[in-house]
Amino acid sequence: MSILVVGSVAFDTVETPSGSGRDLLGGSATHFSVAASFFAPVRLVAVVGEDFGEEHLQAFRERGVDLAGLQRVPGRTFRWAGRYHANLNDRDTLDTQLNVFADFEPQLPEAWRATPVVFLANIDPDLQSHVLEQVRSPEIVAADTMNFWIESKPDSLRRTLGGVHLLFVNDSELRQLTGVWNLVEAGEAVRRMGPRVVVVKRGEHGVLVLDGDDAFALPAFPLRKVEDPTGAGDAFAGGFLGYLASRLPAGARDYRKAAVVGSVMASFQVEAFSLERVRRLTPAEIRGRYEAFQRLTRFGDLEG
Amino acid sequence: MSILVVGSVAFDTVETPSGSGRDLLGGSATHFSVAASFFAPVRLVAVVGEDFGEEHLQAFRERGVDLAGLQRVPGRTFRWAGRYHANLNDRDTLDTQLNVFADFEPQLPEAWRATPVVFLANIDPDLQSHVLEQVRSPEIVAADTMNFWIESKPDSLRRTLGGVHLLFVNDSELRQLTGVWNLVEAGEAVRRMGPRVVVVKRGEHGVLVLDGDDAFALPAFPLRKVEDPTGAGDAFAGGFLGYLASRLPAGARDYRKAAVVGSVMASFQVEAFSLERVRRLTPAEIRGRYEAFQRLTRFGDLEG
Repeated sequence: MSILVVGSVAFDTVETPSGSGRDLLGGSATHFSVAASFFAPVRLVAVVGEDFGEEHLQAFRERGVDLAGLQRVPGRTFRWAGRYHANLNDRDTLDTQLNVFADFEPQLPEAWRATPVVFLANIDPDLQSHVLEQVRSPEIVAADTMNFWIESKPDSLRRTLGGVHLLFVNDSELRQLTGVWNLVEAGEAVRRMGPRVVVVKRGEHGVLVLDGDDAFALPAFPLRKVEDPTGAGDAFAGGFLGYLASRLPAGARDYRKAAVVGSVMASFQVEAFSLERVRRLTPAEIRGRYEAFQRLTRFGDLEG
Repeated sequence: MSILVVGSVAFDTVETPSGSGRDLLGGSATHFSVAASFFAPVRLVAVVGEDFGEEHLQAFRERGVDLAGLQRVPGRTFRWAGRYHANLNDRDTLDTQLNVFADFEPQLPEAWRATPVVFLANIDPDLQSHVLEQVRSPEIVAADTMNFWIESKPDSLRRTLGGVHLLFVNDSELRQLTGVWNLVEAGEAVRRMGPRVVVVKRGEHGVLVLDGDDAFALPAFPLRKVEDPTGAGDAFAGGFLGYLASRLPAGARDYRKAAVVGSVMASFQVEAFSLERVRRLTPAEIRGRYEAFQRLTRFGDLEG
């Protein structure tokens, strides 16, 4: 089944302890699309400027991402620059130029309105709601957000969440959104806002999936090399929802495996800058790391 | 098989967001002993003062802990006071009174020198070495330490580590001890100091066991109620080593299960102040939470 993503396509300038890169292809919708494309057909809704060339489209085309919803308008593409600290968790934003993204109004091609899985990447919650008004009875609507929107547009975000089944959120954002410190109780508070499933992204500490009374926890993969954390959360969401889209109608067991697949894609994402690692993955590499997660986490019964 | 622990027995005065307690029975050796006692016979080497009464000994006696190595000397028992922040991870030490602990010289009863499993709790590394000089060919020597000793007695700590098979350490201490940020590489750096197995305690983020090329990761249990984190690390070590002591000679699969048992005991430890939850546990409760960890972490094959 197909999956539709609305979010940013950007050029990132990134410094990490391992190196740096200038005007790298990035953005939430970019990382999501490429990761999801290994599991399901992806439909991209985003905007780029005149500086976005054929060589940049190639990264999407080689992964079969449908670009019928990619607007190309006069002006420059969204640009972000940041520098990561030695701990690779904290980062400073050095520059943000919204450019053509400032006037972005997501428009879904008519034929895409019935896409069964929809991902609202981390953009203005009013734009997220605007997308939800255009879709027709999707099976799964998932959303991401960030502290900036939690603080600046709480009412808009609440309206969006009312139409969302699955929320991706990191632990500090979850606590900020709900005002509740305990993660289990914060998950219940989110449920009362709409989403049935809360996927708590904890970076190097893994992921916690709260699905009603069911909880699933997975540690992150202990990597020897982390070059660039940019896009890890979006690659995670891409693997997660791409896998779910391939399993519809999805049950509780599928959500658990989706969290592992998302973690697999995030673990590859951070091993290199931009899309360098993920775009070249093979199904065998993905399966291999999934199995490495099984070896990492398995343990036997208490007796025996 | 028996397990010997050398560490502190103390009275703790603790404030947490859930409440507070005054002169609660605590100390690393206390929490370790009680947790380990559910799995193996425990021998305690520690020191207390004249203010340590029969009612306090009762907590050990009811768990069958052998007190032949508990010295009772003139003066007051070690006292610690601290206050936890709202996040339950950070804490401020408000008061430390070493009292009789200042002159502690651990002496092993002659019959205990051949104990197969030895735990050197978080005390002065010179005292830890002094204990190692008294034991005879133990199968497993495990140690805990902290930033204070890493900073103030690095050479003594290195000498201790040369005789240790298994090191319990949290992630920031591991990075401080080795000067290496990446946990996998830091684990290898510790191996070069002596310990074959490094157990990285990550608090609310679980545990990572590095055993040569083998890695095992387990998330923490998502608890709804955390009353007092004091003693969680020692209860973890107690469950871990107690279980191992019951499985000698222990293989790689036993180390994985030991990490789960340790996490089970730590999860109970934090649910109440002092020993209130752990001392009253039943084998059925322990097994029940072990199975809850299995439900929390299990996932199926990618296909199927």
